[in-house]
Amino acid sequence: MTDDNTTGAPATQPLGAVSTSRVEAFSDGVFAIATTLLILEIAVPHVGEKGDLFRALFDLWPSYVSYAVSFVTIGLMWINHHYLIGLFARVDRPLLFLNLGLLAVIAFIPFPTGVLAEYLVDGDQQQLFAAATLYGVTMIGVSGFFLLLWMHVRRATGSLKNPAAAVPAAGRAIVFCLCALAAYLIAIAVGALAPVVSLVLFAAVASLFALGRYSR
Amino acid sequence: MTDDNTTGAPATQPLGAVSTSRVEAFSDGVFAIATTLLILEIAVPHVGEKGDLFRALFDLWPSYVSYAVSFVTIGLMWINHHYLIGLFARVDRPLLFLNLGLLAVIAFIPFPTGVLAEYLVDGDQQQLFAAATLYGVTMIGVSGFFLLLWMHVRRATGSLKNPAAAVPAAGRAIVFCLCALAAYLIAIAVGALAPVVSLVLFAAVASLFALGRYSR
Amino acid sequence: MTDDNTTGAPATQPLGAVSTSRVEAFSDGVFAIATTLLILEIAVPHVGEKGDLFRALFDLWPSYVSYAVSFVTIGLMWINHHYLIGLFARVDRPLLFLNLGLLAVIAFIPFPTGVLAEYLVDGDQQQLFAAATLYGVTMIGVSGFFLLLWMHVRRATGSLKNPAAAVPAAGRAIVFCLCALAAYLIAIAVGALAPVVSLVLFAAVASLFALGRYSR
Amino acid sequence: MTDDNTTGAPATQPLGAVSTSRVEAFSDGVFAIATTLLILEIAVPHVGEKGDLFRALFDLWPSYVSYAVSFVTIGLMWINHHYLIGLFARVDRPLLFLNLGLLAVIAFIPFPTGVLAEYLVDGDQQQLFAAATLYGVTMIGVSGFFLLLWMHVRRATGSLKNPAAAVPAAGRAIVFCLCALAAYLIAIAVGALAPVVSLVLFAAVASLFALGRYSR
Repeated sequence: MTDDNTTGAPATQPLGAVSTSRVEAFSDGVFAIATTLLILEIAVPHVGEKGDLFRALFDLWPSYVSYAVSFVTIGLMWINHHYLIGLFARVDRPLLFLNLGLLAVIAFIPFPTGVLAEYLVDGDQQQLFAAATLYGVTMIGVSGFFLLLWMHVRRATGSLKNPAAAVPAAGRAIVFCLCALAAYLIAIAVGALAPVVSLVLFAAVASLFALGRYSR
Repeated sequence: MTDDNTTGAPATQPLGAVSTSRVEAFSDGVFAIATTLLILEIAVPHVGEKGDLFRALFDLWPSYVSYAVSFVTIGLMWINHHYLIGLFARVDRPLLFLNLGLLAVIAFIPFPTGVLAEYLVDGDQQQLFAAATLYGVTMIGVSGFFLLLWMHVRRATGSLKNPAAAVPAAGRAIVFCLCALAAYLIAIAVGALAPVVSLVLFAAVASLFALGRYSR
Repeated sequence: MTDDNTTGAPATQPLGAVSTSRVEAFSDGVFAIATTLLILEIAVPHVGEKGDLFRALFDLWPSYVSYAVSFVTIGLMWINHHYLIGLFARVDRPLLFLNLGLLAVIAFIPFPTGVLAEYLVDGDQQQLFAAATLYGVTMIGVSGFFLLLWMHVRRATGSLKNPAAAVPAAGRAIVFCLCALAAYLIAIAVGALAPVVSLVLFAAVASLFALGRYSR
Repeated sequence: MTDDNTTGAPATQPLGAVSTSRVEAFSDGVFAIATTLLILEIAVPHVGEKGDLFRALFDLWPSYVSYAVSFVTIGLMWINHHYLIGLFARVDRPLLFLNLGLLAVIAFIPFPTGVLAEYLVDGDQQQLFAAATLYGVTMIGVSGFFLLLWMHVRRATGSLKNPAAAVPAAGRAIVFCLCALAAYLIAIAVGALAPVVSLVLFAAVASLFALGRYSR
């Protein structure tokens, strides 16, 4: 079995099974690319002759902030993702499809990030509310797929390495995901009155992901 | 041999042989990037001052649908690709070249996806037919390369881990690929009359890939 | 040593040595991304209302051809790259820096590919000559770095797995690289008279890479 | 433990620990993509009918220089990154978060590279100063995160493979990082008088990374 461990199909697994290492490799790729594509949303500013490039670069600060928040958010999701996948001894079909859904939402994040950066300064309140809503809905998608994945951990005890430890961890994670979902919903609602507050709440929820026991 | 299993050239293989793990790593990269680049086809909408950003974001729904369908389609192709590569004990030249051809078509998918998103709402019937045809032809390329790869599985019994199990599986997969090819041809033809029906058929074939015994 | 083989720093290697598997992982990433970025050079055509999208998509054929040739070329380079790296038991500094140079040229390929696609049909003879020259110079860069890498194989016998087999292979590869360099120079020169002939020669050299004994 | 070494969660590690190999895989992805995205900053030049494409391609030389310098810089950072990560036996939380911060700055590099290329020829002195400052500040970010990471190496002896060798190495690396930080600050300050000198200094610091004992 040793010499098979990088090919993803040990002889003892059923024909055509996808190994956890292959799922991780593909997921790592999507996470890495999604974070890196964020930079493409920041266009080189074109100031005319004698234009003030310092000023133009400074005025891009909403793009820098959006970039940083999204990069860190995706990075934290990556940490949590590996925690979760690492619990599984083998990949079953629901895991495969839920993971694909999660990755689709992760890879989507550069778009709301770009929209947010575009309207963070120049947009009016209504436009900023729209941008914040798009970002929040995307994060709800992320949290929702994590919720479904953790619910699957509790059901799929036969696929886990160590069900006795993983199931209680899944219980805590589910509570965490439900709180995150609620926080994102509140953040969006608050945005109707004060969009900037939404953004602070988004950053706060991301911080909770970093600080919480959950991702340890 | 143990300490060679990540370098792709165990001493017992002929000099310069490409290991299956290296083919998988390169392929994983192309699949992951192709899915992630899909998001670049969705441009940040520029509404003027007081413009309705909610509306503008909502009007992008064809882009979201195209993104989701293409992401899931490429994801399913990835699952099937690993199933197929996992059958091989060593990489021969036809596998290497057919795999390269398949990856070239997979990496092409963001382009027809972008065209489809562009013309799904604003395009007239004729333009939508053209966009659907481009998408269908691309999918025919994908199915065609899978067909050739499965035909190679049947021939290259000396390169397989377990020919007794793989050859019948290849037979079933060939039938599946031929059905998919036929379905894509029909979908394109139907598009001349009702392009929207093409799109429904494309999604249906993708679902079959997900639900069928083939990708289990 | 077994449990260290994926971390890139077996205890018996000097502190901070970069393993061949890490060099391959980074290189695989660059190769995979360079191939996949090629598609971004093909922009979604914007035809006006009632515009003929079939025609517009058909008129992009130079882009499709450039995409296919560059994808296959990078793919063949990838195969040759793994052949070469697989000869090494450990990574020395010249290998590290020559490899970085090679990757810089590989990652550059989407740019000349885009220029070629842009001027293949609409450009006049002089413009097509310029585009073909840029493409040829890039390929000379690729072949030149491969030449330097193979010359390093001959010198660095202490870093090789099997010097007795690798050194003669390097000799043959050096001859091959010199021929490729000469062919690219001739192709560029011919382009001054008939640019289209350059392109045919570029494709021919790529085919030699595929068919030759070298990449077997 | 052997058959777990690619899944990132050996049974003897605490539940949910992230392995060094997973951190390397994710980091490799970000490094590879950041280098490859650099090429997207070079747009295909559009010369009109009878326009001089040779001239237009030649005039892009600042883009080529910026591309090469950034590619080599990121490549050297990648070498140093693996040296550092390879010292760790297990990944602790500060390493995880500092690494994420470093990657965020690395993935940012295509943006200042694009700005520099844009203003290297056409920009006036003030604009070039701004572009050089942005590039220098980004490099200060890179050096700063490397400094923090090396300071962490000295503290986190319990996470290291071989603290007796790693701690003195970290001491030397910290001195190196402080020198690089100082050099970048001086380069930025000099840029107020002569921006081109900044660029020469940036390239010089990058060369030091390559030649110094540090990255050996």
